[in-house]
Formats: sequence, structure tokens, C-alpha cells
Amino acid sequence: MNTALAAQLRQARVYDLEQPRFAGMPIHPSHRPGYFYALHRRHRDTYKPQQHGPRSSASGVLTMMEHSGTHIDALCHQACDLMLHGQVASDDVETPAGFTQLGIETVPPLLGPGVLLDVAGWKGEHPLPAKYAITADDLAGCAAAQKVEVRSGDVLLVRTGYGAIWRDEPAYLAAAGVAKSGTLWAAERGVIAVGADNMAWDVPDVRDPETGATLFAHVFLLPQKGIYILENVNLEELARDRAWTFAFVGIPLKLVGATGSPLRPLAIV
Amino acid sequence: MNTALAAQLRQARVYDLEQPRFAGMPIHPSHRPGYFYALHRRHRDTYKPQQHGPRSSASGVLTMMEHSGTHIDALCHQACDLMLHGQVASDDVETPAGFTQLGIETVPPLLGPGVLLDVAGWKGEHPLPAKYAITADDLAGCAAAQKVEVRSGDVLLVRTGYGAIWRDEPAYLAAAGVAKSGTLWAAERGVIAVGADNMAWDVPDVRDPETGATLFAHVFLLPQKGIYILENVNLEELARDRAWTFAFVGIPLKLVGATGSPLRPLAIV
Amino acid sequence: MNTALAAQLRQARVYDLEQPRFAGMPIHPSHRPGYFYALHRRHRDTYKPQQHGPRSSASGVLTMMEHSGTHIDALCHQACDLMLHGQVASDDVETPAGFTQLGIETVPPLLGPGVLLDVAGWKGEHPLPAKYAITADDLAGCAAAQKVEVRSGDVLLVRTGYGAIWRDEPAYLAAAGVAKSGTLWAAERGVIAVGADNMAWDVPDVRDPETGATLFAHVFLLPQKGIYILENVNLEELARDRAWTFAFVGIPLKLVGATGSPLRPLAIV
Amino acid sequence: MNTALAAQLRQARVYDLEQPRFAGMPIHPSHRPGYFYALHRRHRDTYKPQQHGPRSSASGVLTMMEHSGTHIDALCHQACDLMLHGQVASDDVETPAGFTQLGIETVPPLLGPGVLLDVAGWKGEHPLPAKYAITADDLAGCAAAQKVEVRSGDVLLVRTGYGAIWRDEPAYLAAAGVAKSGTLWAAERGVIAVGADNMAWDVPDVRDPETGATLFAHVFLLPQKGIYILENVNLEELARDRAWTFAFVGIPLKLVGATGSPLRPLAIV
Repeated sequence: MNTALAAQLRQARVYDLEQPRFAGMPIHPSHRPGYFYALHRRHRDTYKPQQHGPRSSASGVLTMMEHSGTHIDALCHQACDLMLHGQVASDDVETPAGFTQLGIETVPPLLGPGVLLDVAGWKGEHPLPAKYAITADDLAGCAAAQKVEVRSGDVLLVRTGYGAIWRDEPAYLAAAGVAKSGTLWAAERGVIAVGADNMAWDVPDVRDPETGATLFAHVFLLPQKGIYILENVNLEELARDRAWTFAFVGIPLKLVGATGSPLRPLAIV
Repeated sequence: MNTALAAQLRQARVYDLEQPRFAGMPIHPSHRPGYFYALHRRHRDTYKPQQHGPRSSASGVLTMMEHSGTHIDALCHQACDLMLHGQVASDDVETPAGFTQLGIETVPPLLGPGVLLDVAGWKGEHPLPAKYAITADDLAGCAAAQKVEVRSGDVLLVRTGYGAIWRDEPAYLAAAGVAKSGTLWAAERGVIAVGADNMAWDVPDVRDPETGATLFAHVFLLPQKGIYILENVNLEELARDRAWTFAFVGIPLKLVGATGSPLRPLAIV
Repeated sequence: MNTALAAQLRQARVYDLEQPRFAGMPIHPSHRPGYFYALHRRHRDTYKPQQHGPRSSASGVLTMMEHSGTHIDALCHQACDLMLHGQVASDDVETPAGFTQLGIETVPPLLGPGVLLDVAGWKGEHPLPAKYAITADDLAGCAAAQKVEVRSGDVLLVRTGYGAIWRDEPAYLAAAGVAKSGTLWAAERGVIAVGADNMAWDVPDVRDPETGATLFAHVFLLPQKGIYILENVNLEELARDRAWTFAFVGIPLKLVGATGSPLRPLAIV
Repeated sequence: MNTALAAQLRQARVYDLEQPRFAGMPIHPSHRPGYFYALHRRHRDTYKPQQHGPRSSASGVLTMMEHSGTHIDALCHQACDLMLHGQVASDDVETPAGFTQLGIETVPPLLGPGVLLDVAGWKGEHPLPAKYAITADDLAGCAAAQKVEVRSGDVLLVRTGYGAIWRDEPAYLAAAGVAKSGTLWAAERGVIAVGADNMAWDVPDVRDPETGATLFAHVFLLPQKGIYILENVNLEELARDRAWTFAFVGIPLKLVGATGSPLRPLAIV
């Protein structure tokens, strides 16, 4: 069986949903300065034929927030009244080196069905208006138009169209996002993870009138429902090819105790 | 087809080949200090019900070498007489922010057939003796005993048994590795990547008598053959279950210009 | 004698010329992201009475460019046609861990006479107009008006008035600076170091018509004259009190191989 | 007066009490990985005569704990039963970016009389035995032999002799230190700061029988007495020249909110 699977994977059409990582890419203000890579070991430095023959080596050092670039949030990333998912008190599990429970290393590889709702495409606005709030009706309408269903166990990706302007931080930070009703709609469908081509899935700066929460999905999906959130996913090629359903592959790094991980998600068709 | 693939992936047995990442894990001396994660934003810091309702957020900052933990080397990582793969002069493509060619962002997701040669298991030594050099004969003998073939396009993983002592840096740094003849044998088979459960695939501190090169595979596979090297791969479970062949999934991050990427490789059977 | 000196120092009026350091302070684009401090070890983390009695400890981690905040440039920081001061070829002394010659650790503590030319005050413009270029005539006129002389061995500080807007990065980065003629005037006087309350001493974005050099003082003072440059010096209090001459104290850290050091300069009167 | 002071400073004999900073220097286990500097911008990278004339620039990035190398502890660094100096509750003043009270930026430049008690020299053991605990009697005996007094307002430096082995981390981490009685003796004299040529002033691994505290001076001097602690001070030259009294100059950086600062202390005679 694995031989067949391997052959299938090798021949499949693979969509790369990761944005490139570089200093200066958009970053949420809470996670500044975001990302920095310095190449300090150059080949000439280590080129010493007497010692190493013709071989030389180069390498660098990364400084980065775990929530920079395309990434996935661990359940410990958000709390609701200081409770993490499963009624774990945040105070009990924080250490200088990270969380002792619900850290990103506890997240299994996400392998399974994925579905894209291309709301920007459906509405014919690329991208959607700044801070536009995608509602449950939008999601349902888009799904109907695409003739797809969102099912239990799926990874749900929603396109705002902002993935195309990854190099324009001010515009990107004002992207459209998913409204509370849209988040509830996704959770009701039993998805295991959601993701969008914006900084936070949620609409920036909106407060839930009931709870007063900013970033409603963050306080709802992670601590209450145990549903992961993917951010800064690049959905442009997938939408261009109208690849609404696919096998989703997302494999977080086991950064012990960390609250998220950079991710290079794939959609395989 | 993608529905079937997604279903298959969801039900498959997935082996996680990544070692956990934490400060103090083994690191090659060239890449010290290796890895550090600091959790600085705690939930109580951001728990401000007047502003954010019940929601709070925690996050941290990573400082790490791209060659820390389980990782993959980009082709720009090594040069032969200051030439990278494809006769690119290293001087022409190095910048403070990384390489303008052959950086890790140019490496596609590795999806396809993988094969494990459990040399430690075959020899009945767990782990192999310190600095033991695995020869072409060892690889061929092990493959014959396992009744597997290494074929063009495969990802080849070789087990020394040192993955079991990931928390013992001095012993781990003296691990067994693959001798020059073993590296040549792998390249002749046309593999696209090799990996082992040690720090460098190569045997530490050995010099090739012909070229004088230390870490022979590094100067041969990367700049001359364009074959990727994976390091610090955890092969213990795979060997325990005698899962000699599998679908290999390894997805490097697109760290623009970097010479490698942390990786969580999977073997799917 | 040292007793007298110690008593004198203890009773002296000490002006603190360092700007506060925090994430988000102005930074030259070449040195982004500049400065970041994360407090990750909190007192509750280490408060374990059984092990440590009543004692607990807190600490953090700094990530910073050596040219962030108030700082001093080492001679290796700038080259003229790839030659450092004393005709040292830059290629010969660069390593991944810094310079083997002319690094900041070779700079002695700067202790001796200092003089402030308050050009902003003399002109009655606080601050001077954006990108205003302070000429030799300005410096000479200001010195005459202040009735001070700039002498051999002095540390010369020049005030643009931009130190007052340290928290306004865009305005600060467009500060006034010292023109080529002003730099030459300072060098002719034999000063050992110059400093200003701006990002670079030089005027931003100006090119020397003769050599084509941007940041003329950087290529002239450091590699050619061996005169240090101090940047982001806060001269507001000193100017307010019309303290034109003083004992200057500036003590760089011995960051081996680094091209500069953060500095808390003092003026003692 | 300032002219005289400046002249005096320029001609004075200045002892540099800072150890050099480099990756691999000794570090307390709580502050690993300690210190790392990467030179990533090289002169050839920025040598573009068409754009910048003959000028080029090099620079790097520092990652370091504020308690690495020769440094001074801020009052917020240690708590006694979760109370900082002045009965400030640690919980009330900690943020992700540091302390809102008692951070290192609140420490004024330390300028005034300093005194060295060369206990290693007095005992004729260079260095003192590993983990030797310097008592009040030792300090008093050494002071009498040196014919010096420790007075109110002094900075007191105590020599164990371990400053000479800065490049030998294992031996350095087992250095002699000051016993509880020695710490009490120093505090009774009204010093404003103490320092030693070891990692922590205190003897490693000793617990105070009364309170159970490890590192007794840390919980006594900082939160209870408001006396600063300097660590990893190099006292070798000062001792060699028998310079028992001097003007001390120690100028912490204003790293806002940080719990300490790297320091290059000077002794001027």
C-alpha cells in the first residue's frame, strides 16, 4: 500500500501554501520584530584546503517569533478567562521555556481532507474590501456555489485574496477576515483546523458584542473547541486552479513548549 | 482522486521522524549555540477583560541555527572548491540575508518513496559502535537482508541507532556514520536525499584520503550531485516496526536564502 | 590622588547622554530590526522555597544590532575601497564571529575633555530643519558664539536638537546632520571622537560630489582618520544647562570582533 | 573645574575590569546560552562604488542574556518571597518587555570610591580553593593587612583569583565566593555595590541554614538592602599593582525593563 501511496504522492499536483519568509514580511504588532535571518558563516571563512580539503560550509542564525509568516497556532496560544483547552489553567503550565501542556509539539501532523472556500473569487473582489467580515452566509453561499461541502474532520481554508499582497504590510494588516458567524459556522461543521490568507483569520480590531472579545475565533476555536488556526496561508494558486478540495498536509515542528510553529502547508490534488 | 488520497492519508500509519526541539539538544560545534526558545508573553500579561474580553494570548521568541535539530541541508550549505551545485560560485550568491541562489526556499517538498536501511538492527548493535563507518558493503548487505532495493528517486534513511540517545550530547556527537563508500553507493542508486539518525550522515572527524575532505558526503552529495542530506532523523519507531519502505514526506520551510531548514519528516505506511 | 578624584566624581554633576533602549526606538534601515528584549524568566517561575528559600530570580534575553540606540562605531565598521584604518584589508580580518582586528574591543575607554557645539541652540531652531547640513562655518560660528575652542584630543558633540524626538522614528530618521565641511573642520582640530544627536552624524542621503560617498564622515573619519563616531547621543540636558565643556566618559563594551558597541556616554562638569 | 577633571581623567592610570565577551565564555546555567555574535554584513556586500563611492559598511547581530559576561544586576533581578526592593510585589511589575519598576535603566552611573580586598593575594592562593567561602573575618583580616577601610558609599570588590581563568568554564563555575558572613560584613559597611571575579559573588550551591536561600547575597543585597552586585569582574591587574583604592566607574546601559546590564567597569588611580 505504501508503495502505491508513495507513487501517488510523487506524481500528484502539489500546491505550496506557504508564503516566503524574509525580514520585512508582514507581522502582527504583537509579534514584532517577527523574523530575521543573518548569514554569518560564509564559504570563504571555512575554505581551508589543508584542513578540510575542497569542502567549505556556510550557515546562519534565525531569530523569529513562532507566529511569524505562515504558521499554525498551538492550543496554548490563547486562553479564555485564563483557561486553556481542556480546562487547563494557564498559570499552571507556563515556564520560561514554554508550556508544559498543549505546546505545539503535541500537535500531530495534519493529514487529511481539505477544502477551500474562495470567498474573494465568489464575490468577484480580489481582494475583498479592507476589514470585510466574512459571515456564515458568505461561507454557505460560497460553498453552495462551489458545490462543495465542509465536513467533519476537514481542514477549512478561506480565501480573502490578501495572500497576493504579502509584500505590502500596511494593506495586508488591514485584510478582510472571518466574522464571528463565519467562525461559528466552521466550528459547527466539525473542522479540525481553519486557515486563511490573512494575519489572524479574524477581522482585525472587531470586538464580539456578547463577550467583548477581540479576535473572537482565537478565544473560541483554540481554548474552547480545540480547533487549530492557520495564518498567512497563500491560497492564490489553489484558487486560480479552482482546486476546491484536496488532501491537506500541514506538519508543525515540535518546538517543545512553543505556542505555534512556522508551517509550509501543502494541498495535494 | 484527491478524496481518496485524503482518506488514505487520514487513516495511514504515520511515523514521526523528528526529534523534539529544546535548548540543550545536541548541536554540531559549528552551529552552537543551536536552539533557544523564550516564552515572554504570558496569558496574565494580556488578560485585560476591558479591552479584550476573556481572551488572552501567549507567545515567545526563537533563536536558532537553521542546522539545529532534525533538519535538511540546502544545496548552498556546502561548496567544493568554492563552487556550489551547478557551478555557481559561492562568492557570487552570498549576502548578509542569505543566498540569492540555491537557498532552502528552492527545495520542493519531498514526497515520494522512502526506504530505511536499519544497519544497527541488521548488525544487532544498538547503537553501532562510536564513529563506526557504515560501508557500501554494509548498506548492500543490510538491503539484501531486509529484502529491499534502493531505487532512483528514493529518499534513503540509514539507522545507526543513535536516535535513541538524543538527550546525551557527548555520546550522540560521537555517533556512527556513513563511510565514503556508503555515500557513493547511495549516490549511484540515484536517491534524491539521504538521512541518518546522527549529526551529519558522515562519520565525524574522518578525512577522505583522496581529496582530504572532512565530511565527504557533504562535499560530494550537495555541491556535486545535488542530493539533499537530512540530519538528526529519529528512526527508532520505524525500525522497531520493521517498516522498511514507506511514503516519505519532508517539507522544508521557505526561509529565503537560508542554508537549511528545520524539518519534521514523516514516514507513512 | 585617587581619593580626591573619587570624591570629585561622586559630587560632580553628571549628564547622562544615552537614550533609553526599547523595542521600537529609531533604527537605521541597515540595522533593522534593531533591538528586542524578552523577559522570559519570571519570579514565580523560580520561586521554590523548598529549593531556594525565599529567593527567586528573573531575567531575559536581548537580541540587538550593535548599532542600535546610543552607540559608538569601531574602526572596522567602515572601509574605504575595502581598506580599514591603517591599511588593513577588510577581506583579511572578517570572520563569522567578527573582526580579528580593529574590533570594538580594541577601543579604550574614552576619558577626557569634551565640548558641545549646540548648533540648534545657536541658530534658535529646535530642532534644525530636516536634513539640514551643518557646515564648517556653522561649527566655527557656534564655537565663537559659545566662546569655546575645539582642541586636539577632545570629544566633539554637535547638537541638532533631534534628541528630543527619540520616540518619533520617521522624523528622527530625517534629522539634520553634519556636512562634509563640518566633518573636515572637526578632523582638522584633531578630535578623537565626534558624536551627534542623530542616527549617523552625517546628513542622510547626501553624496559627496568628489568621491561619490554617502555618509562622508563614515568613510573619512573611521577608515582614514581613525576618529570614532558616536550616534544617537542625547544632548538635550547638556544644552539646556549650557554646559559647553565637560569631562567626557564613554566606555564601549569589549564585544570581541564587533563593529560597535552600545554606549552610555556621560558628560561630567 | 571640569577642565581639571578632564585633564586628570585623561592622564590617569585606568584599569579595565571587564572580561572580553565571546561565544563560549563562562555562563551561569540559568543564563544559557549566554552570548552570541554573528557578523553578517561584510564590507564586500555593501561595496558598491556606483551607489556609495568608496565606502562600505560591516555589522552584526548580538543575542545575549543581560547576565552574560561582566555585568551588574538590577534590583528587580532578585526577589525575597516575591517582593522586590522597597516592597514592590514582583507580580505587579513584570511584563513581556521587562519590569516597569526597578529595571536596570533606573540605576545611575556608579562613580565614586572603590576598594579592592585581594583575599586571594592575602592568603597567597591564586586562585582560592574551589568553592572556598570568604568569611567576614577574611575580609576584615585582608582589609587590615592592606591597611584599607571599607566605607559607606564605596564599591567593594573582592578578589578570588578566578578572573585569571576566564577561558576555563568548568573551573570558573566552581570558583570561590563570599560567605554569608562576608556579605553581611559588606552590607554593614554601607557599600553601594559589591563585585567579585566570579560568576555570582556568592559561593555556588551553598544554602543559608537560616532561610534556606541559595545565593544568599542575591536575596539579601538586592531586594532587602538595595545594594547592587557586579559579576565576572576582572581584578587581576588591579591586584598585581596593589591598587587597593581607586575611583570606580561603572555605567550600566539603560536597557528599559531589563534585570541587568553588561558593564565595563573601570578603576582609576
